[in-house]
Amino acid sequence: MSRGIFISLEGGEGAGKSTQIKSLSKRLSKIGLNNIQTREPGGTPGAEKIRDLLVRGDVSRWTPKTEALLMFASRQEHVEKVIKPALASGNWVICDRFADSSVAYQGIGHGLGAESIENLHQWTLGDFKPDLTLVLDLPVSVGLERTQGHSLGENRFEDMDTSFHERMREGFLSIARDNPERCAVIDATRSQDDVASDIWDRVLAKFGKIISGQSS
Amino acid sequence: MSRGIFISLEGGEGAGKSTQIKSLSKRLSKIGLNNIQTREPGGTPGAEKIRDLLVRGDVSRWTPKTEALLMFASRQEHVEKVIKPALASGNWVICDRFADSSVAYQGIGHGLGAESIENLHQWTLGDFKPDLTLVLDLPVSVGLERTQGHSLGENRFEDMDTSFHERMREGFLSIARDNPERCAVIDATRSQDDVASDIWDRVLAKFGKIISGQSS
Repeated sequence: MSRGIFISLEGGEGAGKSTQIKSLSKRLSKIGLNNIQTREPGGTPGAEKIRDLLVRGDVSRWTPKTEALLMFASRQEHVEKVIKPALASGNWVICDRFADSSVAYQGIGHGLGAESIENLHQWTLGDFKPDLTLVLDLPVSVGLERTQGHSLGENRFEDMDTSFHERMREGFLSIARDNPERCAVIDATRSQDDVASDIWDRVLAKFGKIISGQSS
Repeated sequence: MSRGIFISLEGGEGAGKSTQIKSLSKRLSKIGLNNIQTREPGGTPGAEKIRDLLVRGDVSRWTPKTEALLMFASRQEHVEKVIKPALASGNWVICDRFADSSVAYQGIGHGLGAESIENLHQWTLGDFKPDLTLVLDLPVSVGLERTQGHSLGENRFEDMDTSFHERMREGFLSIARDNPERCAVIDATRSQDDVASDIWDRVLAKFGKIISGQSS
């Protein structure tokens, strides 16, 4: 059995990641490719407890470094207990946010620096990265408008100021520029169907051969 | 105003750290030296939440790396929000466990390696370390016997197997050997009064001049 493929979706608040993950999962299942949908921070019972500490409460609750350490603590659990085993057993893994979010949020948004977050990534996970990262891009104001009333109390990051979200958007775009072989920027201002088609085209372009080999 | 002094107490379970911290605090107060008692993991409201994740639940609840990341997440909060401000305002800080516990527990006990933990320490805190570390040493069986029934449900570490505690004890002793200018090993099998006197002698020997300058 061949190893599965690991795809992460990144982007600011309200970019439509959840919808697109469901759509991608459905398309993979339709052609017989087993896949799991998961998310960060979270994805294991322990990591979800860490998530609660991160996404709730006061904006200034944690120092930026603590926030980064908590993110990688939950990520380590998630990778070792869910993502790697799923990939090893041939499943595709579609993840709502992964390590690029730490670079964008704590590295660039909070100013710790991208390199500092890369060093913490190396300590925690070595070179483990997604096979494909889809950066769903849209203007900050549009994204934040979309999230109004949908946060279920998980609004610590949404509540950060607009300049934080602007830095983060630029952060994701610069990550994509620096990692063209892994990342694709998707214009998320379009209709859900258009975005879904675009994502599917990117997946086929990159993994078409693997899909022909794996799908039933 | 001169900066305060930072003292950590380390050692296995049941070494009598809490009792000795109270005693040392009393002696410092008696000669007019303001001081705070604190502990790890914990020491701030947020860090105490992280503590709950660490000290409760199944022994195998976290991967060793997640455990180390959670420890340093709580430590970063504690250092930035409590320890450094207290020292800056001239207080002495007496801390129940600090970074050496991460070297002994996750580095040596769990096998991540002392150097790996030192790297995480550097990422999180740079060169920030205690001015004096008192390693309360006693045989593992004696320590575990003393903790029976005193854990208040915080028994995740006590419940690890005896060989883990043996490795940890050796770990603390090797840290003390490698850092003789910072660490003192205290024989904790003696009476509480004898241990307290020994600790006080070490503090006077190292900080006698500073104490003469600071105490009222």
